[in-house]
Amino acid sequence: MIVVLKPRISRKEETAVLREIRRLGYRPHMIRGVERTVIGAIGDERTHQTLETLITWPQVESVMPVQKRYKLVSREAHPDDSIVMVRGVEVGGRRFQVMAGPCSVEDEKQLMRTAQAVKDAGATILRGGAFKPRTSPYEFQGLGEKGLKLLTKARREFDLPIITELLSEQHVDLVAEYADILQIGTRNAQNFQLLIAAAKTGKPVLLKRGLSMRIEEWLLAGEYVLSSGNPNLMFCERGIRTFETYTRNTLDLASVPIIKRESHCPIVIDPSQGSGRADLVAAMCKGAVAMGADALLIEVHPNPAEAWSDGAQQVTLDAFRSLMADLRPFIQAADRE
Amino acid sequence: MIVVLKPRISRKEETAVLREIRRLGYRPHMIRGVERTVIGAIGDERTHQTLETLITWPQVESVMPVQKRYKLVSREAHPDDSIVMVRGVEVGGRRFQVMAGPCSVEDEKQLMRTAQAVKDAGATILRGGAFKPRTSPYEFQGLGEKGLKLLTKARREFDLPIITELLSEQHVDLVAEYADILQIGTRNAQNFQLLIAAAKTGKPVLLKRGLSMRIEEWLLAGEYVLSSGNPNLMFCERGIRTFETYTRNTLDLASVPIIKRESHCPIVIDPSQGSGRADLVAAMCKGAVAMGADALLIEVHPNPAEAWSDGAQQVTLDAFRSLMADLRPFIQAADRE
Amino acid sequence: MIVVLKPRISRKEETAVLREIRRLGYRPHMIRGVERTVIGAIGDERTHQTLETLITWPQVESVMPVQKRYKLVSREAHPDDSIVMVRGVEVGGRRFQVMAGPCSVEDEKQLMRTAQAVKDAGATILRGGAFKPRTSPYEFQGLGEKGLKLLTKARREFDLPIITELLSEQHVDLVAEYADILQIGTRNAQNFQLLIAAAKTGKPVLLKRGLSMRIEEWLLAGEYVLSSGNPNLMFCERGIRTFETYTRNTLDLASVPIIKRESHCPIVIDPSQGSGRADLVAAMCKGAVAMGADALLIEVHPNPAEAWSDGAQQVTLDAFRSLMADLRPFIQAADRE
Amino acid sequence: MIVVLKPRISRKEETAVLREIRRLGYRPHMIRGVERTVIGAIGDERTHQTLETLITWPQVESVMPVQKRYKLVSREAHPDDSIVMVRGVEVGGRRFQVMAGPCSVEDEKQLMRTAQAVKDAGATILRGGAFKPRTSPYEFQGLGEKGLKLLTKARREFDLPIITELLSEQHVDLVAEYADILQIGTRNAQNFQLLIAAAKTGKPVLLKRGLSMRIEEWLLAGEYVLSSGNPNLMFCERGIRTFETYTRNTLDLASVPIIKRESHCPIVIDPSQGSGRADLVAAMCKGAVAMGADALLIEVHPNPAEAWSDGAQQVTLDAFRSLMADLRPFIQAADRE
Repeated sequence: MIVVLKPRISRKEETAVLREIRRLGYRPHMIRGVERTVIGAIGDERTHQTLETLITWPQVESVMPVQKRYKLVSREAHPDDSIVMVRGVEVGGRRFQVMAGPCSVEDEKQLMRTAQAVKDAGATILRGGAFKPRTSPYEFQGLGEKGLKLLTKARREFDLPIITELLSEQHVDLVAEYADILQIGTRNAQNFQLLIAAAKTGKPVLLKRGLSMRIEEWLLAGEYVLSSGNPNLMFCERGIRTFETYTRNTLDLASVPIIKRESHCPIVIDPSQGSGRADLVAAMCKGAVAMGADALLIEVHPNPAEAWSDGAQQVTLDAFRSLMADLRPFIQAADRE
Repeated sequence: MIVVLKPRISRKEETAVLREIRRLGYRPHMIRGVERTVIGAIGDERTHQTLETLITWPQVESVMPVQKRYKLVSREAHPDDSIVMVRGVEVGGRRFQVMAGPCSVEDEKQLMRTAQAVKDAGATILRGGAFKPRTSPYEFQGLGEKGLKLLTKARREFDLPIITELLSEQHVDLVAEYADILQIGTRNAQNFQLLIAAAKTGKPVLLKRGLSMRIEEWLLAGEYVLSSGNPNLMFCERGIRTFETYTRNTLDLASVPIIKRESHCPIVIDPSQGSGRADLVAAMCKGAVAMGADALLIEVHPNPAEAWSDGAQQVTLDAFRSLMADLRPFIQAADRE
Repeated sequence: MIVVLKPRISRKEETAVLREIRRLGYRPHMIRGVERTVIGAIGDERTHQTLETLITWPQVESVMPVQKRYKLVSREAHPDDSIVMVRGVEVGGRRFQVMAGPCSVEDEKQLMRTAQAVKDAGATILRGGAFKPRTSPYEFQGLGEKGLKLLTKARREFDLPIITELLSEQHVDLVAEYADILQIGTRNAQNFQLLIAAAKTGKPVLLKRGLSMRIEEWLLAGEYVLSSGNPNLMFCERGIRTFETYTRNTLDLASVPIIKRESHCPIVIDPSQGSGRADLVAAMCKGAVAMGADALLIEVHPNPAEAWSDGAQQVTLDAFRSLMADLRPFIQAADRE
Repeated sequence: MIVVLKPRISRKEETAVLREIRRLGYRPHMIRGVERTVIGAIGDERTHQTLETLITWPQVESVMPVQKRYKLVSREAHPDDSIVMVRGVEVGGRRFQVMAGPCSVEDEKQLMRTAQAVKDAGATILRGGAFKPRTSPYEFQGLGEKGLKLLTKARREFDLPIITELLSEQHVDLVAEYADILQIGTRNAQNFQLLIAAAKTGKPVLLKRGLSMRIEEWLLAGEYVLSSGNPNLMFCERGIRTFETYTRNTLDLASVPIIKRESHCPIVIDPSQGSGRADLVAAMCKGAVAMGADALLIEVHPNPAEAWSDGAQQVTLDAFRSLMADLRPFIQAADRE
């Protein structure tokens, strides 16, 4: 931790800061600069109490951490890429994966038709929401357990592992019984109790980035999963909230190379939430592949205009098929399979 | 709902849109403008399926809702101000209320000393965190039930109702047993299952604004509380996330007159989270009072530099006392008691 | 400047960094911590070449400045409040000032009627746009010199100094000939050539905050004015751009205490641009006064619904009169006149 | 324009709105809905006075434009892609272009060495700043005319057209004399007088997106160029300002497909400003190519750690060479040359 003192403070005020640093378990080290005096506080910032409260002292100008706050998710801790195994499907390996399916599971016909189509087009994991977090209480909240049952039926029929959202601690056992990947949605990205509960099931966890999460906070949320004993974590970028209104969110594709650099966990891109517009999905997918993402999570619906949720961002079965064909040269250019 | 068609589409494409609008239960009404044709779709947007997916149709340029999505929290539904009663303390009435206390309950001495001081200075409700949502799993997570017990002890001793954060569905019964107000934190502001569970206890709920929540989304989250049968809702602005880094968050004080206009529920300002810096708290409080807030929620600590969480934003007991004195003329100017 | 090294780098890589620091004119000072080695680079960051490019070196993890980049605008350089004199009107002194008038000067009748009304209600400076920066080329761009002439006529008639926007280097002499305060608008807040040209006229300059300017950048833009030899600078907060769409901008009232702390220059609040909605202006004004602003800049129009620009945010003459009356108790509470 | 009335207003209040709409030159058309009455105001929103000020009327709930505000830059106006010719180099055609060179021109050796290297690696346009807009007045402001002369020398020697920034109306003739493309920087993106002056030179204009510009505003700024009689406009995305601090800006790659859809003008990506970190540039370039950008604008420096400006984001000559090689398969996959 670096503590910067204000200019022109007394020796006594200085000594008080040094004493406090020692009291909190750090070893202070002073550097007198031209305009400012700086104190390096030596000690492990993760285990000692933090010094950040020194900022409240009148003689202190700023306090800056030097150490990264995340550990288990960091590439320092684990230099090689982690591969998450999902019923035999490897996410994070050489093979590029595509998770696809409807935003919400609506009925058997809709799900089976979609599952068939995405499988035929090359998707390797089936997505589908059974519990839906909705901005308004008056919107469709998902089929619940009935939706989970339909998903497992589709899994059996098409041999596709399934990913579905977990949005309540009360549902952990239920959802974990059916799903192959537990998806934590953007609104729950810092619902730490839910993260811990999900982690403890041992199932792979896909952690979406919160709408206004800095990358450091996202990595720290991931740290909750790994520090709960579950190494099977995937990060999923789905757009952040900015002032731009043309798109529903701003897909921060820079998070692909950044997560690759900072962490060993796979990075998945969700272009559907990321743009909120089906007509932008194909371009987003190409960008994600080119930048090094490990997988895509795409919303596909037989008839988006009739979807019970988020129709505007779901692509049709036909559009999905041609999207998959269009992606192929980019997957090769990115040296993936 | 207003549907804007693209220019130069065929009569057949137009008819298809009209048919779809009817199929979804709305009555279409066309207006041919100079450059665009617009269709008004008549029907209740809250009960019918929404037309928003029409945006995926190639002949449609934009779809705009005309109706507000929230209902029970709206001033239309309830023109008079709602007053929330908390063990005899009225929030939202003529009397201005101050909720104060430490960020985290740390031990009996810290809590009692703070409770005594804030009571003496004029605070009417005691705040204190027993369960703490922390960005990193390596930070202090709160004393849990022990903290709740200390809070009730302070309530008994100083006759101050208590507000404390609820952050897990698993804790609902426990926290509701002790607390007089259930605080839903910013990270859980769209954890709808938690909101419903909190509402069902019947206890007053203080709903903090999420870091990147639009006001409409905040009102809709409040709608989850009221539509679960609990009318005792308070909104609490605590700063939104922007690009500015001088402050931890940007306190959006405009939310005071906006919530007053759109809703009948009380609005509380949290200047501590709102700025992240104790030295800005006093100015923020004055602004909040002047703009018409119903109450403040202030973090106070006997020794912020030793606080176990968020020390940088907690004010000392002395600073709190002089803050309360400084606020008095503004409370009078705002015609409150 | 603090340079943090990556863990586990060789002694040779370390030495290279030290050598570079010396080469750039700084004296390096090492601190070996538990997990990281940190180098303090001693020297004046403003005069030496900056070390920030060290971040491109593979062995460097981060580079953090410790010194503030602004100097002449800082309170360190000038501990007392600066007062800007505008034809006998003091901005930044004990007396609270109100600048009011139409967004755009439209014609003589509109301007004179407004000037009369705002003077009667207590405003001390007349505002009015003659050159208007408009998002679209198809919108009204201002009356130009004709508008300036009308403003000086109003000044003569009502003895009110005038403030008007300068938006082009080509207009500097023209606008400076007529105006008492040169307003630099939000879109030109980092148009440094315009800032320098405005400063060189010697006239007081009111510098609006850019839509996405951090406070440090705003202070540095002000530094362009002072370092061009003009001490008569006022900062004007007018809202920043965030994700919120209810208001046109998010008025960051925290900038009042922050500018007061960091700088000696007066701080003015523009609640009209800050909200974009006339119905929020009164509450914004009260908050600004309570938080310690030195002046307000308010858009007033005899008939906002017929205004040639920004009608939605202009208040009527009547609304202005009652606003001024409502502000009085808050001005007293803030211990101003 | 769509005008939504508040519920439960009187017939008289309604009539007043209708009258005002007529007075402003529109033809009103009413739709009575279930909960709201809506008025469509028929007329060309670009030529008539706008109705937006109706929002100030107490009986009006909201006012929504239905027409796009930009015209000449829109694809509606010009369905085919526009190709901008720069001394024989086509931007916006089948051939993918790379503009590369130093952030600032520093001296002859630095520029010639860079020009040689980028030419050899395949770049087709040389970039270099002679006038630099700097956040602080104490930073290097560019070599000025001397820099322009060096650029033309490099053009002669390596047969590369040159792009350089124009940041002052005072420099228009000077810069236009030397440059092949006039770059308008992010801080001047809404300096409309500068845009008009640049347009009038007839030289191709590259318009960077402002830090907090919505895409609609960016298109409208471009409209200033086209409506001044200059069709040779290129848009350049260089990152927007968000809350994320890991990168200097958030590169909004979605702007590639969006500009392609809304406009006929070429779209260029600047990955250097877009990330602020040289180590992210390669990934950004691949994403830009895959998503359909027409060109890249990359900062390259022989020794970034010694650069006089923005060293952290400039790539070395070697890194640029391998970047160009790595891009090739993506350019092919995107079906470009």
